[in-house]
Amino acid sequence: MASCGFVEYDDAGPEVRAVYDDIMATRKTDWINNFWKALAHDPATLRRTWESVKQIMAPGALDPLTKEMIYVAVSATNQCGYCIASHTASARKAGMTDAMLSELLAVVGMANETNRLASGYQVEIDERFKPRASSAR
Amino acid sequence: MASCGFVEYDDAGPEVRAVYDDIMATRKTDWINNFWKALAHDPATLRRTWESVKQIMAPGALDPLTKEMIYVAVSATNQCGYCIASHTASARKAGMTDAMLSELLAVVGMANETNRLASGYQVEIDERFKPRASSAR
Amino acid sequence: MASCGFVEYDDAGPEVRAVYDDIMATRKTDWINNFWKALAHDPATLRRTWESVKQIMAPGALDPLTKEMIYVAVSATNQCGYCIASHTASARKAGMTDAMLSELLAVVGMANETNRLASGYQVEIDERFKPRASSAR
Amino acid sequence: MASCGFVEYDDAGPEVRAVYDDIMATRKTDWINNFWKALAHDPATLRRTWESVKQIMAPGALDPLTKEMIYVAVSATNQCGYCIASHTASARKAGMTDAMLSELLAVVGMANETNRLASGYQVEIDERFKPRASSAR
Amino acid sequence: MASCGFVEYDDAGPEVRAVYDDIMATRKTDWINNFWKALAHDPATLRRTWESVKQIMAPGALDPLTKEMIYVAVSATNQCGYCIASHTASARKAGMTDAMLSELLAVVGMANETNRLASGYQVEIDERFKPRASSAR
Amino acid sequence: MASCGFVEYDDAGPEVRAVYDDIMATRKTDWINNFWKALAHDPATLRRTWESVKQIMAPGALDPLTKEMIYVAVSATNQCGYCIASHTASARKAGMTDAMLSELLAVVGMANETNRLASGYQVEIDERFKPRASSAR
Repeated sequence: MASCGFVEYDDAGPEVRAVYDDIMATRKTDWINNFWKALAHDPATLRRTWESVKQIMAPGALDPLTKEMIYVAVSATNQCGYCIASHTASARKAGMTDAMLSELLAVVGMANETNRLASGYQVEIDERFKPRASSAR
Repeated sequence: MASCGFVEYDDAGPEVRAVYDDIMATRKTDWINNFWKALAHDPATLRRTWESVKQIMAPGALDPLTKEMIYVAVSATNQCGYCIASHTASARKAGMTDAMLSELLAVVGMANETNRLASGYQVEIDERFKPRASSAR
Repeated sequence: MASCGFVEYDDAGPEVRAVYDDIMATRKTDWINNFWKALAHDPATLRRTWESVKQIMAPGALDPLTKEMIYVAVSATNQCGYCIASHTASARKAGMTDAMLSELLAVVGMANETNRLASGYQVEIDERFKPRASSAR
Repeated sequence: MASCGFVEYDDAGPEVRAVYDDIMATRKTDWINNFWKALAHDPATLRRTWESVKQIMAPGALDPLTKEMIYVAVSATNQCGYCIASHTASARKAGMTDAMLSELLAVVGMANETNRLASGYQVEIDERFKPRASSAR
Repeated sequence: MASCGFVEYDDAGPEVRAVYDDIMATRKTDWINNFWKALAHDPATLRRTWESVKQIMAPGALDPLTKEMIYVAVSATNQCGYCIASHTASARKAGMTDAMLSELLAVVGMANETNRLASGYQVEIDERFKPRASSAR
Repeated sequence: MASCGFVEYDDAGPEVRAVYDDIMATRKTDWINNFWKALAHDPATLRRTWESVKQIMAPGALDPLTKEMIYVAVSATNQCGYCIASHTASARKAGMTDAMLSELLAVVGMANETNRLASGYQVEIDERFKPRASSAR
């Protein structure tokens, strides 16, 4: 289920189908997961979200596996059940092993712990860690 | 400042100094940042936290740079100013370029966005994404 | 289910019934949803929470539909499944269309994204955005 | 600073002064902290919030020190700088020692860590932990 | 300051200047706030983020003031200091009064409270609140 | 289910069994809950996490019941379903009554509310609440 229902491929108009086709081609799969079918009731949001995801998750300075693992790290921190499940699956497809998942979640857990120790103890930022005032380039 | 003050090396007892020495040796630095100096008023917490961080952040199935970037991803999601600053510095020291930071934060931003779209639209998890019932090994 | 069970109308004492009656009269419904039945094992919390909700959600400088949409925005950000479901229903009852829900969630998603870009990049607040030092009135 | 400025006692109308007087009498202090002065531009919110805080933080099944420490735990988890500072001060006034603060924050850190391990590993809830279906009393 | 510094208009290349010009034209202002200057070290992220914000915040099924208030609600929930400051300023510019801000924050506070009561009491979702199984259109 | 499956006692190697035995002995129970069975696919994480939990939750400056209630407070704030269920059960076993749970959650709700009022109104920290500059001891 989803708040506005799912748009299946066969029921979709041409704008939605074009996005669905691009998702399947880009990801080399033959199905569309529920997230996109829930967004598709609003074709503009579907397109904008997909175009952003496609651009951001493409190989660049970071490889796709690293990006998928960062996605899992954020989703676990936010405790988003859907995104943990879907991006764990994506990360495995991109090459994440059980051992890598285990180390990933250990870092996520530790970071969540020390984030609260730092704020709970009201630790002020060391001067050396502050961004420099110099311009960007 | 910090809730219980900072313990400087010169004022520290042998148990705290031993941890400080190990931090500096492990990280190849000659100073201790405020986080550890705030924990040090309680030597047991200082030791336990450092031992966990040291074990978790060591090279393994994931390399140290990837682990530092995951730390930044979690800290940015939680908006912990101290940890964003300190782990951005650590990640840079481990080799993160401006281009890598930029892609890292783009993924963090997008994951935070789609986490809320998934939960806001009440999207149910696809059967294919659910962990299998089979045992671990 | 709920941690302390549900208190049904027929099993409730007069203090709880009085709140239930006021909820149904104020909301023009003939049933009580699980949230209130879970709080009702502690009549003081039930009454205090309902009185606050009733006062806060009443028409004022903002209309009830806007208030319900803000409730959905917070609940989606916190990923509270119960409150997303219940306040999406309330907002629809107050007039929210699918198109409005879609724009609402698009803003929620974008705000969650840019919140992390702002904190992740350690952006300092522009002088012009800071509250003025002047007194309240 | 605060978004709508601060209302000082000398500038306040009788409704705000009555709340300020009750805060100082209840807390046995002779000053009002910034939080209340920021709310006071809206006397109805000031009164409602204070009445709720006063009722909730009063001794009951839990003692005031325990309640103040829970307040710190939540505020550290949410990384709210203002509330960490103000409720750490309140908890100290209620008897919290450095050793108690240290154990409190250790639990907060560990809970934040295991929360993410539980969600990150997609651990399903044990049957024995689920609330029973039985009614409230 | 910001992690990668700020890109000022005079130092910017044509791609960044084009975005800056569009921001100022769309918002009818003559300056660029720090958020965009921090993103601008990565022109692709700057453009994508601005295009998304521009599309999402434009008048549609919801008016711009409502959208700005939703932005404030999310930012206050996430406790993002930068975005609270910048979007409170934007919302005021779009017509938000002190009375509206006060009611907005009262709803934000109450939603954050009841989100935790609902999850803390482990309240299951009422059948009537669940999205229907029917398709989107 | 869990991302990497569960390790049952009968299928576990000696390192995992040693931790399971210690968990059961420490907690005076004869079963292992899903959280530990999900971690056990990675024996090093299982051991480190258990040793930390055991050390942190032991009686000290705070009693075990207070620590379990703080665990519930954090888990409810993070809306972690698994940890709310498991630590509510643990707290009850340690002596938490319905009345104590009710007051605990009332404080959690109120703290989540005032955290957002403080940040939403951009309230600056009172000088008196800031940690003193003096050293730790």
